[in-house]
Amino acid sequence: MSTTIEGAVSGTAGEEEGVTLESLRRKMADFARERDWDQFHSPRNLLLALVGEVGELSEIFQWKGEVPRGLPDWEEEEKQHLGEELSDVLLYLVRLSDICGVDLGKAALKKLELNALKYPVQLCKGGSSRKHTSYSSNAHSRRSSNEEEDPSSGTSEGTA
Amino acid sequence: MSTTIEGAVSGTAGEEEGVTLESLRRKMADFARERDWDQFHSPRNLLLALVGEVGELSEIFQWKGEVPRGLPDWEEEEKQHLGEELSDVLLYLVRLSDICGVDLGKAALKKLELNALKYPVQLCKGGSSRKHTSYSSNAHSRRSSNEEEDPSSGTSEGTA
Ligand SMILES: Cc1cn([C@H]2C[C@H](O)[C@@H](COP(=O)(O)O)O2)c(=O)nc1N
Ligand SMILES: Cc1cn([C@H]2C[C@H](O)[C@@H](COP(=O)(O)O)O2)c(=O)nc1N
Repeated sequence: MSTTIEGAVSGTAGEEEGVTLESLRRKMADFARERDWDQFHSPRNLLLALVGEVGELSEIFQWKGEVPRGLPDWEEEEKQHLGEELSDVLLYLVRLSDICGVDLGKAALKKLELNALKYPVQLCKGGSSRKHTSYSSNAHSRRSSNEEEDPSSGTSEGTA
Repeated sequence: MSTTIEGAVSGTAGEEEGVTLESLRRKMADFARERDWDQFHSPRNLLLALVGEVGELSEIFQWKGEVPRGLPDWEEEEKQHLGEELSDVLLYLVRLSDICGVDLGKAALKKLELNALKYPVQLCKGGSSRKHTSYSSNAHSRRSSNEEEDPSSGTSEGTA
């Protein structure tokens, strides 16, 4: 169901290749200011709004069992809906970051570097799900480093 | 505690102004491919990973009561941690979108246009929290349009 609103396609042709986090940050700030909604955009209001949108996103997948990549069997309408919920999460995330004074783009680039240090290619490669799982579970115990199964712990986690 | 890893600052100087969703999408794809982790990056695995990161993000705010914008009283270490969790949510969101075949930047621009139609400036402005609240609660009943308190329902919601 492509009830595309006027301008939604033509107005953004080409432009979407290079959508920056900064441009979304600015658009969300304008959106709120124009409506006098800055008063509602406090950190925890935005966090809960984000959580709500994550719930809506989860709802789309909830009873499906695992789904193949690219969602080959999904109706166009369902894919549109998915795009909207993914976007709502993104927009609230961008706005929350802004309101907290965090430069999200900069933070993401830095996190990518931390991830690469935490999960070195040579240790992860090979598709061992054991390794993947132990690395993964280690992730959730940031505060206790020096776990035996993780050869990288304690040396490369940066700010963790 | 700015234990910045080598290159995390110098390597991204200037660049972060224009961080695009497309560049993050590519970096996450490279990250997974280099580690043979594509096998783990199925839609629902990624969605659950995202939900997990949203939990970690929520944890940061959980017992604080409302916090002022810009987080003036937060320790630098806590702000760093916040930046990392915001980034984890973003990175899994970008990866989930990619794996689902959704162009997140394009979808976000379109959603911003839908939001502007759903919440017209002239109807929202004035800071009436009643209006804000009724618009807001209306949002969570997408499937039942024509709600009386929402003059825009049924006319401008596009694909909703
Ligand atoms: C374990 C794992 C991590 N990451 C990346 C994305 C997140 O930014 C970060 C999360 O790592 P951790 O679970 O250690 O917090 O690492 C990823 O892409 N795929 C994975 N299978
Ligand atoms: C009600 C409301 C909406 N939005 C924007 C961000 C989301 O992308 C979308 C969510 O709208 P809804 O709650 O109607 O789904 O609208 C926003 O920024 N601030 C608000 N106070």
